[in-house]
Amino acid sequence: MKIENVNPADIEKRSMEIIESEADFTGFSDSERLILKRIIHTTADFDYIKNIRFSENAVESGLNALKSNAVIVTDTKMILSGISKPALKALGCEVHCFVSDPDVVADAKKYNTTRAIQAIHKAVDEFRDRNIIFAVGNAPTALICLHELILSEEINPALIIGVPVGFVNVVQSKNLIMSDKIPYIVSEGRKGGSTVAVSICNALLYQLYDRKTGEVLL
Amino acid sequence: MKIENVNPADIEKRSMEIIESEADFTGFSDSERLILKRIIHTTADFDYIKNIRFSENAVESGLNALKSNAVIVTDTKMILSGISKPALKALGCEVHCFVSDPDVVADAKKYNTTRAIQAIHKAVDEFRDRNIIFAVGNAPTALICLHELILSEEINPALIIGVPVGFVNVVQSKNLIMSDKIPYIVSEGRKGGSTVAVSICNALLYQLYDRKTGEVLL
Repeated sequence: MKIENVNPADIEKRSMEIIESEADFTGFSDSERLILKRIIHTTADFDYIKNIRFSENAVESGLNALKSNAVIVTDTKMILSGISKPALKALGCEVHCFVSDPDVVADAKKYNTTRAIQAIHKAVDEFRDRNIIFAVGNAPTALICLHELILSEEINPALIIGVPVGFVNVVQSKNLIMSDKIPYIVSEGRKGGSTVAVSICNALLYQLYDRKTGEVLL
Repeated sequence: MKIENVNPADIEKRSMEIIESEADFTGFSDSERLILKRIIHTTADFDYIKNIRFSENAVESGLNALKSNAVIVTDTKMILSGISKPALKALGCEVHCFVSDPDVVADAKKYNTTRAIQAIHKAVDEFRDRNIIFAVGNAPTALICLHELILSEEINPALIIGVPVGFVNVVQSKNLIMSDKIPYIVSEGRKGGSTVAVSICNALLYQLYDRKTGEVLL
């Protein structure tokens, strides 16, 4: 297998062509396809076509939030690090991750709970009047906490990206979120992770922001 | 499926037990198993047992480098973000990622090449006399560049973690690295990514650093 001669600027385009030629996206909207293609681009795992569940209004609600100065709240520093900063800046949006904040770490110890849960509570306090997109790629406890806050009507998030990965309560936490009447994008089953969360966030952002020109597309 | 009641401090242990009960690690050394288990913990993808290739002395060379103030050079900010900072600090090691440095970005444009390649050149210049572990989770061009520098005997890395993900020259770049006479840990095929690179780095670090006590285990 020889090295393929592709101009650096065209590598992503060529990747997407290969993905399109191998995958079947029947039944998904154009916006959903952009998200699925970016997830596969990021994981080389076609399972996500079967695993990803979009609630009916998920993409629309996520895009509307990003058009209205949304705050993205993540449960890992890796997600924070991977989300496109130029796109966020151009759209007047922000991203925050509180899991390593000293008060969050201290409270998690104090209450024998997870940092992810304490970070959710901090975010909810801090951004009470904002459009929030939660992007959870690691901690099922964060999703379970969000589910409880939705049930008690303490939050009404614009979108929950629920893609934690793993073996303990991961499947269960995603099922809880999918039982809620809120906009969600969830990877059913065990798979997911920080790179999947990032690819969903960036696939939304790039529908509103042209990376070549830096233009906002509203 | 009900929520399993697991103490936050025991979630990772419980995950590893589930992974062990479902996977067959026959033929791998204890150190290699720790790496494979952490990759599966991070991806929920058992394919990696089949895909990961360890060169004969890979783990030993990586561990020795981390005992001798190694520099880890990554090709993404997400990898930089995910590698355990307390472990690095305790061991006197560092991690760097140059892909977003203004000089790297400018040179990539100037030479119509990738930022990943320019970042490798910068790292090689900067850390000429150091033990270097390269952790590549995204850019096959970085691996191809490393292969050329190995052939021309300009570098002699302690370890190459070659786990880029994707569709354009990813398979080829990994095959090139596996043809080199250097220590490598490679995910054969298309799969890999930043989380896989992080899990390999941290699985090495945690063999030398006790996360509970903060002790260095030499």
